[in-house]
Amino acid sequence: MPGTSTLYNRIQGRNLERLAALSDGIFAVAMTLLVLDLHIPAAAQVHTERELLFALVPLGPQWVAYGMSFLTLGIFWAGQQTQLNHIREGSRDLTWIHLGFLFTITLLPFSTRLLAEFITYRAALGIYWLNILAPGAMLYWSWTHATHADLIKADTPAEVRGSICRRVLIAQSLYAAGAALCVINTWVSIGAIVLVQLNYAVAPRIWRRKRS
Amino acid sequence: MPGTSTLYNRIQGRNLERLAALSDGIFAVAMTLLVLDLHIPAAAQVHTERELLFALVPLGPQWVAYGMSFLTLGIFWAGQQTQLNHIREGSRDLTWIHLGFLFTITLLPFSTRLLAEFITYRAALGIYWLNILAPGAMLYWSWTHATHADLIKADTPAEVRGSICRRVLIAQSLYAAGAALCVINTWVSIGAIVLVQLNYAVAPRIWRRKRS
Amino acid sequence: MPGTSTLYNRIQGRNLERLAALSDGIFAVAMTLLVLDLHIPAAAQVHTERELLFALVPLGPQWVAYGMSFLTLGIFWAGQQTQLNHIREGSRDLTWIHLGFLFTITLLPFSTRLLAEFITYRAALGIYWLNILAPGAMLYWSWTHATHADLIKADTPAEVRGSICRRVLIAQSLYAAGAALCVINTWVSIGAIVLVQLNYAVAPRIWRRKRS
Amino acid sequence: MPGTSTLYNRIQGRNLERLAALSDGIFAVAMTLLVLDLHIPAAAQVHTERELLFALVPLGPQWVAYGMSFLTLGIFWAGQQTQLNHIREGSRDLTWIHLGFLFTITLLPFSTRLLAEFITYRAALGIYWLNILAPGAMLYWSWTHATHADLIKADTPAEVRGSICRRVLIAQSLYAAGAALCVINTWVSIGAIVLVQLNYAVAPRIWRRKRS
Repeated sequence: MPGTSTLYNRIQGRNLERLAALSDGIFAVAMTLLVLDLHIPAAAQVHTERELLFALVPLGPQWVAYGMSFLTLGIFWAGQQTQLNHIREGSRDLTWIHLGFLFTITLLPFSTRLLAEFITYRAALGIYWLNILAPGAMLYWSWTHATHADLIKADTPAEVRGSICRRVLIAQSLYAAGAALCVINTWVSIGAIVLVQLNYAVAPRIWRRKRS
Repeated sequence: MPGTSTLYNRIQGRNLERLAALSDGIFAVAMTLLVLDLHIPAAAQVHTERELLFALVPLGPQWVAYGMSFLTLGIFWAGQQTQLNHIREGSRDLTWIHLGFLFTITLLPFSTRLLAEFITYRAALGIYWLNILAPGAMLYWSWTHATHADLIKADTPAEVRGSICRRVLIAQSLYAAGAALCVINTWVSIGAIVLVQLNYAVAPRIWRRKRS
Repeated sequence: MPGTSTLYNRIQGRNLERLAALSDGIFAVAMTLLVLDLHIPAAAQVHTERELLFALVPLGPQWVAYGMSFLTLGIFWAGQQTQLNHIREGSRDLTWIHLGFLFTITLLPFSTRLLAEFITYRAALGIYWLNILAPGAMLYWSWTHATHADLIKADTPAEVRGSICRRVLIAQSLYAAGAALCVINTWVSIGAIVLVQLNYAVAPRIWRRKRS
Repeated sequence: MPGTSTLYNRIQGRNLERLAALSDGIFAVAMTLLVLDLHIPAAAQVHTERELLFALVPLGPQWVAYGMSFLTLGIFWAGQQTQLNHIREGSRDLTWIHLGFLFTITLLPFSTRLLAEFITYRAALGIYWLNILAPGAMLYWSWTHATHADLIKADTPAEVRGSICRRVLIAQSLYAAGAALCVINTWVSIGAIVLVQLNYAVAPRIWRRKRS
């Protein structure tokens, strides 16, 4: 029945749109909530312009954790979007895999707060790393599922099909290596993770420019 | 007048889109706000890596309540979406029924906080259960209203028309049975409710796999 | 140049969509933020199931203020939507009038908090009433502007054109009368305002049923 | 291959839509979060209607900072929208430039809080000004990039192409001049910045009226 199949495609398509809308909402709130944890100095401690500037210095770890989390959220937002752009139709399963993905995203403000408060503790860094691993694993699952359940758009080039999972695996290996550097120091670890993130956000620009 | 009717259909259609957008926004904020109540350990109490990990253990009830509420929100989001996908056009009444539904959704962070703080109290569990019952009742009302007011898409299979209300009734009976188990213990009750929720989120996947 | 005019229409149309999206986002956040101010009882004060239930009673004023504000937000959301549905294209002016409208909406969580804390004070009720008056005035301005600047869809019935401003004036007169009742008591005033709101949300259903 | 190019255009177009949705979400949350910092007077300090009104007076600086930030957010929201309306297709680079822009937007509630608390400190005003400069710089970068990478819609009039960057430069010069006035006093500075903002929000209305 072509009529029925058209109906279902339409409904599924709309499902994907609402899933995208929910995702955009969750990412928007998570990105903005992070800033609620950036405390301002207490007025009682500040009496001069100099004191105000100096009172901002101890907030450094908060800023580092905040900036890193914004990068993390940006990367996963872009990653999920790339997948959804290549998916022809949604399904109940796919919806719940993505709700699981979004669950791990909503946890990030918690891990960020924990890391900001205990930035020299390996336990805090380990929990933060788990919060990078988990959404990555969900996106990997999402694409594997979409491939097996034949939900991918017919016009998706074979190159894209293969590269998405590979990309997740490489990125997650680099994050894991970065996190492992905390045997030296959590700051080294954070530096390594941020470098990997900046590589994914900025480097393609440099590479592409070289090519062209 | 075909012209006027087209105009109204377009306006109504747009109404449904904005209702969906408002709903996605409210669900996104509610899902993300939950995490604001996940407190991190006080820095003064933590001096070693071990102490940090141990300080996270008492947060257990918060996590249980948080995870359960995310499931609740996911189930009602998916449930509302299924209905809206089959509704041809909105109406003032339907809008207000759904605003009532969204009102019960915005209360969930409150019930969650109450349950997290008083997780062994039957009163807290009872209030939480009412907050599962209320959105279910609103969705039931929404579908009944849409049926009577003839707002459902013509191509919605009779099978779907009947199943939506039945599904709400069965799910709510199971939740009520789960909540009733608090005569034994609130933890038993919570376990039962989460199992019912996981059944709705995950089980269809298993069943479908068996069939195919 | 028909090409240019088409371009501009498209851009303006997209403006209206983004204005609607921003509005839905702001209403969604405001509706959900209200609940952050619903405090739960302190654990130290509660030792039995009875005590937990009794500890919820003094939260009454918070709930009244919260429920009333959800109604207020729902009414203004629906009111703005009705206008936007009849507007053909946006303009810079209209955008800023609606940003002004949204500004008054973001103030509502503040007035609600103030009223919840000082529910027997006429000053708190007066400020709350100003926060119902202000968005009403902005919506009135928006429609008047859209009429004068010829931004309304050609197929909008004359009946609708006239009724939108009249509706705002009547509703605001009723709210003002309700607020004036605070010379007796703020509770009388709140009761009257909520009745007017319920009238706008629920009553049309009853009237329509009688007609049909 | 026209087929492939069509595919990519579609995907890119959808990218722009999701970027717009994420932006609307972030602006909506930022605009609404500001109000969380508007504290209400402590109940213990208030015993009469007069005392309640007087207790609101010291909140003045908070309101000034809040109102100014809402204007700032409105201006940048409208500015980003104008750009996106003229961009034909997105790109990875453009996405990350806009994520950078959104990052500076999420910082605004922090700068606002800082300014509200330390409104007579030049350091607080200087940080706030940096938070107006940064999103302006990102929007300038975005348009320059879109021009060089040929992402702008073919039907964008040459007049619009040139005016966007010029507009950013003029506005930012005026903001910088306003911020420089803090050598006199931070209040003079704030007044000047708000006047510039109101000029961008309101003045075009007056000018256009004169013309027509």
